[in-house]
Amino acid sequence: MRKVLGIGLVLAAVAASPCRAQDTANNLPPAVQALHAHLASTPDAMLASAPESAWRAIDPDDTLYMNLPQGRVVIELAPQFAPRYVANIRKLVRQGFFDGLPIFRVQDDAVAEWGDPTGRKSVGMARRMVAAEFERPVRGLPFTALPDPDTYAPQVGFSDGFPAARDPVFGRAWLANCYGMVGAARGNNVDSGGGTALYAVIGGPQRQWDRNTTMIGRVVEGMPLLSTLPRGQGPLGMHRDRHRWVRIESVQIAADLPPAKRTALEALRTDTPTFTQYVESLRNRRDPWFKVPAGRISVCSIPIPVRSKVNT
Amino acid sequence: MRKVLGIGLVLAAVAASPCRAQDTANNLPPAVQALHAHLASTPDAMLASAPESAWRAIDPDDTLYMNLPQGRVVIELAPQFAPRYVANIRKLVRQGFFDGLPIFRVQDDAVAEWGDPTGRKSVGMARRMVAAEFERPVRGLPFTALPDPDTYAPQVGFSDGFPAARDPVFGRAWLANCYGMVGAARGNNVDSGGGTALYAVIGGPQRQWDRNTTMIGRVVEGMPLLSTLPRGQGPLGMHRDRHRWVRIESVQIAADLPPAKRTALEALRTDTPTFTQYVESLRNRRDPWFKVPAGRISVCSIPIPVRSKVNT
Repeated sequence: MRKVLGIGLVLAAVAASPCRAQDTANNLPPAVQALHAHLASTPDAMLASAPESAWRAIDPDDTLYMNLPQGRVVIELAPQFAPRYVANIRKLVRQGFFDGLPIFRVQDDAVAEWGDPTGRKSVGMARRMVAAEFERPVRGLPFTALPDPDTYAPQVGFSDGFPAARDPVFGRAWLANCYGMVGAARGNNVDSGGGTALYAVIGGPQRQWDRNTTMIGRVVEGMPLLSTLPRGQGPLGMHRDRHRWVRIESVQIAADLPPAKRTALEALRTDTPTFTQYVESLRNRRDPWFKVPAGRISVCSIPIPVRSKVNT
Repeated sequence: MRKVLGIGLVLAAVAASPCRAQDTANNLPPAVQALHAHLASTPDAMLASAPESAWRAIDPDDTLYMNLPQGRVVIELAPQFAPRYVANIRKLVRQGFFDGLPIFRVQDDAVAEWGDPTGRKSVGMARRMVAAEFERPVRGLPFTALPDPDTYAPQVGFSDGFPAARDPVFGRAWLANCYGMVGAARGNNVDSGGGTALYAVIGGPQRQWDRNTTMIGRVVEGMPLLSTLPRGQGPLGMHRDRHRWVRIESVQIAADLPPAKRTALEALRTDTPTFTQYVESLRNRRDPWFKVPAGRISVCSIPIPVRSKVNT
């Protein structure tokens, strides 16, 4: 591998998969600090030097584990955007509703979808259908707006760690269908979803679905377990052959597990000066590889860094 | 599968993988034509009813086959954007330069990269380095502009079947790093590429690379063979373990093969009224599933349909 990296035949890019950054010391001579300031303008160095206060623990109450034969997919829920759906999904999970159900659809450059493909499995104490939560009022919602123009929405940015959009004129906000975002599948009736089937975006952004589905969270670890799944050969990436389905071993809420069995994660906060600097370091790349900094950045091209929780 | 599709627990989307559309008859009663006109406003129906003149054969001289153990990846070259690189790649291919070389990098939501990881394999009659072709003059270039705003460029659209951008003030045009686009890797020196290592975008758009790499074409068939590859565990998705490398069996130019051994493909032309209608059908989805048509579309969210060549 040394040879590969040595000759630099690589494209520079922030890893889209979770970054595992480490803290660095601040007591350095001025010359070293100046060098550090220069290096800190690259995304990787920016993360490495981010203060502890720039990180937040991901709440175990808002964390789903989807355990697959290949490993664990970790999803952070977004109750601030979809309170009724998230409550219903919590009920479904605690009843073991998803255990043994399949990933039945994998569409290239689009989506993986899992849950009940028949719509007939008992939902027990939960509900099969929940009224749509496609958008919510702007009021009461933290929002770090990007200055960059967006193709789809009047304004885009981040809210509590999720990529989001809003319309200031109508006072509405919604989550954006970026890579890794999780939403509830539904039929043609807007209120026909409920969380019994969920999808994750495994390819390019699917922004045409914004305000058409209830978004319930984001995959914060384990995306490659979904993005590398064999694609379905049927329409919309449906698996024609049930033998191609991947069986979900179980879905759990992290808080229901003893701490030793949890995947303790921290995410970079999206409402701090550090995050703003991180975004700027992506907007105008100063890594020596880049010849033309873009000057702009798309909301879906900003990976939200996640790391294993630092023991203090 | 009937059950799955029956209850509609699916998200409607145009398949990002090549669409294989079929022609339909036009001699129908008025009522059926009216129904047809309504259905034709969906992307799938739009493609099904596209006239033969809306399709173009992909030139075998501009077609690369990358034969992997898993199957064939078909790449359409873009000599109109990178004449020197394409000429050099043709020489490399005809010398068998890529045969046996690996896919040595697979970065989730980003890129797969292949070719010579050492920079030492003999290039024979070809050149190891070719001066950068990041952009070209607007003059002489067909361009179907989109009216939609773009985050990264003053104007975006399509040129000869490729997603592209241009700056009318400076009179420059370049290809966009959308899903499936292929470019030449390079070191920090802008002129250090040459086509001995190539990459394909396998995740979200990498528009920050626009005008930073020489784009040489687009994967027109076989993307799932790249997008499902196991991700590399090293920095930037490099495989730490060479045993994870995928060996390229051979790379060939289609025109060098007898017709019976070619993958004969046609692509939807991007300079016709049909294409404009197709884009509009994606911009404002009229499928019954959609509640809120987006009203806008991103240049990277418009899959360019490809089908097996129709025998006439």
